[in-house]
Amino acid sequence: MKVYIVFSHPNHNGMGYAALQSAKKGFEDAGHEVRVTDLYQEKNFNPILCYDDPCTLCEMQNDLMTKPYRDNITWADKLVFIYPIWWGSGPAIFKGFIDVVFASGFAYNFKGIWPHGHLGEKTAWVIVTHDTPWIVARFVQRDYGRIMRGQILRTMFGIKGAKLTTLPFLKRSTLEQRKKMLAKVYRIAHKA
Amino acid sequence: MKVYIVFSHPNHNGMGYAALQSAKKGFEDAGHEVRVTDLYQEKNFNPILCYDDPCTLCEMQNDLMTKPYRDNITWADKLVFIYPIWWGSGPAIFKGFIDVVFASGFAYNFKGIWPHGHLGEKTAWVIVTHDTPWIVARFVQRDYGRIMRGQILRTMFGIKGAKLTTLPFLKRSTLEQRKKMLAKVYRIAHKA
Repeated sequence: MKVYIVFSHPNHNGMGYAALQSAKKGFEDAGHEVRVTDLYQEKNFNPILCYDDPCTLCEMQNDLMTKPYRDNITWADKLVFIYPIWWGSGPAIFKGFIDVVFASGFAYNFKGIWPHGHLGEKTAWVIVTHDTPWIVARFVQRDYGRIMRGQILRTMFGIKGAKLTTLPFLKRSTLEQRKKMLAKVYRIAHKA
Repeated sequence: MKVYIVFSHPNHNGMGYAALQSAKKGFEDAGHEVRVTDLYQEKNFNPILCYDDPCTLCEMQNDLMTKPYRDNITWADKLVFIYPIWWGSGPAIFKGFIDVVFASGFAYNFKGIWPHGHLGEKTAWVIVTHDTPWIVARFVQRDYGRIMRGQILRTMFGIKGAKLTTLPFLKRSTLEQRKKMLAKVYRIAHKA
């Protein structure tokens, strides 16, 4: 299986990067081929979608700056997104990745008012980290982990097999809990 | 009353910009003082939050690039945010505005695990535009209009009086419907 991981965190000290390493190792140990984009390290990537008229949006699927990312997506059987929840959404650079890479014509089209996704042959896995207390995260919080899985990957891009793994309440997690979370990420990747 | 409007759309042809004009006129006709930041026109604004260690986050409240925006927020009695819903969230540039401007120490602090907002004396108004069919938007969609009002402005920043106005399903709206929406925005601003 070919796996494309998009990682979006500014530093390599935290649980997000550790989750990236665990997932990558899990996939590779199972014999899968893995490509990784560490989005903060992409010096030529501009996440700000700017357009003057709707025609710019139609042409976005041919944009050369974002072509390497679309090529990786086309190549992959499984898409993996790893990012923190900040203010209920992803980091701006990740939100911009969705805005500029998953262009109309490439990832979806509209049939009338309803979206028709083009990535239905793939599977996807979203891994988010956050600091929100468990009970709030479970029953109150709406965040860009669930939105990404449900509204974006499933509904818009047509990826039925889109899963979400949350590494929650990291601020107060113990070393032992963190190790368990990373082992879970490894296991999921390994048996994918 | 002092009103600070942050507008985040790349072009000035659509309903977002029209809503900005209606809101501004409504406030001004009622005698309020208005400042506007048109975020896409801010050439020195970098929306990408980048940090190597948690200390960078502690210092973010003193960052000079974002100081003018915090000064406007401090100046204002009412904060208004106007942006489109793209992929269930705001444009990356707006998400980045939240990430880098509303720094810890300025907009909130944590007391233990619970947030303590510092902007409780202000009111806020979120105006979002989207193309989602009404019934989906009402019963299925979770988006960054509701998250911004509930989880960010109310819960994190302590702004009890945070309202949300949605200009929905614009793709299929008639000119008449659009005029009604803009009149509503004007009325809300005028009687604020």
